[in-house]
Amino acid sequence: MSQSEKGSGPSRRTFLSGALAAGGAAATAGVAQAQQPDPAITELPDWSRYNGEGVDARPYGSPSEFESHVVRRNVEWLTADTVSSVNFTPLHELDGIITPNGLCFERHHSGIAEIDPGQHRLMINGLVETPLVFTMEDLMRFPRENRVYFLECAANSGMEWRGAQLNGCQYTHGMIHNVQYTGVPLRYILQEAGLKSSAAWILPEGADAAAMTRSIPLEKALDDCMVAFKMNGEALRPEQGYPVRLVVPGWEGNMWVKWLRRIEVGDKPWHHREETSKYTDLFPSGKARRFTWEMDAKSVITNPSPQAPIAHGPGRTIITGIAWSGRGTIPRVDVTLDGGKNWHQARMSGPSFNKSMHRFYYEFDWDGSPLLLQSRAHDSTGYVQPTKEALREIRGENSIYHNNGIQTWYVNEKGVVENVEVS
Amino acid sequence: MSQSEKGSGPSRRTFLSGALAAGGAAATAGVAQAQQPDPAITELPDWSRYNGEGVDARPYGSPSEFESHVVRRNVEWLTADTVSSVNFTPLHELDGIITPNGLCFERHHSGIAEIDPGQHRLMINGLVETPLVFTMEDLMRFPRENRVYFLECAANSGMEWRGAQLNGCQYTHGMIHNVQYTGVPLRYILQEAGLKSSAAWILPEGADAAAMTRSIPLEKALDDCMVAFKMNGEALRPEQGYPVRLVVPGWEGNMWVKWLRRIEVGDKPWHHREETSKYTDLFPSGKARRFTWEMDAKSVITNPSPQAPIAHGPGRTIITGIAWSGRGTIPRVDVTLDGGKNWHQARMSGPSFNKSMHRFYYEFDWDGSPLLLQSRAHDSTGYVQPTKEALREIRGENSIYHNNGIQTWYVNEKGVVENVEVS
Repeated sequence: MSQSEKGSGPSRRTFLSGALAAGGAAATAGVAQAQQPDPAITELPDWSRYNGEGVDARPYGSPSEFESHVVRRNVEWLTADTVSSVNFTPLHELDGIITPNGLCFERHHSGIAEIDPGQHRLMINGLVETPLVFTMEDLMRFPRENRVYFLECAANSGMEWRGAQLNGCQYTHGMIHNVQYTGVPLRYILQEAGLKSSAAWILPEGADAAAMTRSIPLEKALDDCMVAFKMNGEALRPEQGYPVRLVVPGWEGNMWVKWLRRIEVGDKPWHHREETSKYTDLFPSGKARRFTWEMDAKSVITNPSPQAPIAHGPGRTIITGIAWSGRGTIPRVDVTLDGGKNWHQARMSGPSFNKSMHRFYYEFDWDGSPLLLQSRAHDSTGYVQPTKEALREIRGENSIYHNNGIQTWYVNEKGVVENVEVS
Repeated sequence: MSQSEKGSGPSRRTFLSGALAAGGAAATAGVAQAQQPDPAITELPDWSRYNGEGVDARPYGSPSEFESHVVRRNVEWLTADTVSSVNFTPLHELDGIITPNGLCFERHHSGIAEIDPGQHRLMINGLVETPLVFTMEDLMRFPRENRVYFLECAANSGMEWRGAQLNGCQYTHGMIHNVQYTGVPLRYILQEAGLKSSAAWILPEGADAAAMTRSIPLEKALDDCMVAFKMNGEALRPEQGYPVRLVVPGWEGNMWVKWLRRIEVGDKPWHHREETSKYTDLFPSGKARRFTWEMDAKSVITNPSPQAPIAHGPGRTIITGIAWSGRGTIPRVDVTLDGGKNWHQARMSGPSFNKSMHRFYYEFDWDGSPLLLQSRAHDSTGYVQPTKEALREIRGENSIYHNNGIQTWYVNEKGVVENVEVS
């Protein structure tokens, strides 16, 4: 596959005029240097004068000390306890489509289970011909596949149903990550146990103290679900289900059961807590939409955003963000600077995988006047990301889950960015 | 793009019989449980009884304590000092195609420069219309791209020219990593400065105390080189050139100048130390092959391998490994169990990008007899990875660099693996 660009970006002419703006700033710095020397150029820094640390310093590496602000963060008032809480991905500090393992959002209901893989087992039981118990080593003897998928919590952007509340894309949209999984297609494991003819659902169960369970239709289990043990090349991180988790591509995050210890095969859904009192969408009528598994197309501008203002003033400015759909790929994203009056097609860059995060850019010359930034994803089914207003007309404001509405950032003359609503 | 499988794997029938073998082992464990309870099943482990750490425990995550052996390692006798040395990627512990940032091999000549990005500058000078100095913020205002590329040191497998020496693919082949880069195409930056008509070469220079320089033809610089500031989504790691490095896709690693502070444009190569006394291939005649930039197609079986023996005894066995080419993609890898008498086409799984690592698998039923394992990569130009013997016939044994010969692992009856030569 060629790693070529998709979508229509700025024309060559437009880019060059923009680049000149950036170059103008640089050239100005150069001129300033002649009159008032820039110590960053005229004085040799210590790192150019002395040897640094050797290869024995960090057998397992870590980021630069200058990146110590790039971390996952929680919202203290959001949950009663940190062991049943959320740690959000700093989307505004990332680029491309891969989320590094140390920054993947985490959500757990009884804290991070720290499992000894030698003591871990995966049991398959219920409506199967032969109940089986696998060690981790047994699982490693099935054929493996490598796939890149996004995982989004159903509650991502959930606080925004009743208006703009959280000031930063880390908090409004940070319950998502996108990694390469290595694992075994679940169908191989189910076929090994042998499905009885009445089998129609599975119930994966976690080995943490919360013993998370969700009902999943067998059709999905046999389609693209995976039993994964590696993320981005290395072992799963503890907070992501080490040593083994379920991968349920395109479907809401809490179905991707972590610390997977058992899969029961049944003939109907179990109606457990996490699919009845939780993870259902309460309509204004009082009735609830349930089993809303697929995550609809969504996007967000990650830069600029409240945590990442425009610091450089007017001139050449880069807008970037991410888009994804639980139903396919994202062939197109539009960006508006004026709250939806005019839309511009963004430039996509990076791999376009099914049910994976996509990266978009929009380059323009900012004149310094206020902006109302929005992005709008189109997915490969033809679905277009709706406004929050359109969603509320149907779902009301009681929902917590499945808010895939268009997000708005207000940028003022100083480049400061705020989470706002437009109607 | 669909994330479908490529290549001919084991047939459905073959897989099922193999899976039954694995299932047989699992079923046996299940039977054993009935007679002699497996405490891993009958006793509830602590991680299922008590809450784990909360979301405030690890703002930047780290691997499980059970994975503490998965680290980069150096070879003490290889270099005189750890500040001019190599730390090898633990390939036998990884899967898929992405190398996690904490495990990317590192090679530096004056240790790890720890640069303050606010003080860092990139200068473009020489045969340009307008010499320019960029801050990191200036660079962020150019259009960015996202590409996945392998980086291999020219000396990878260099110790193997004179026979099997290092016992583990981490050491024989671990001077490679494969990550997603975000950065600016170098041509945009050179065009910003304006190239004079006599411009034909560039000389990138690092800001570390070694001030690494390499001559690169302008044609390559304008083709696919990037000035990158992010790897796998986050900022470059210090040992990978934070805050900015050159990416020279498919070409030998030391041209990918780290801690990039200057690019001089000239009309001929500079013949600096790292491209004359080093990084040339000395022929038996005493003449040296120079400017050998492109990394030829290569592959290695990562599992089983000396650091990762077959622990489970005869039965269903998974062979996996990686393949790459500086000239394109890898449409095919072959595997042999008998030192090259019979070759079997491996199954590829995962993205196939230009100048990127590819992952292959070969599943078979091991009868417990000794094996001579080899893999052989075919690249998209039609080139086939040669034997070490074929390479030596032309290059002799004085070379250090560019050994892309076929690697052999000997597996004995107990599953223990050794680095050997076959002829």
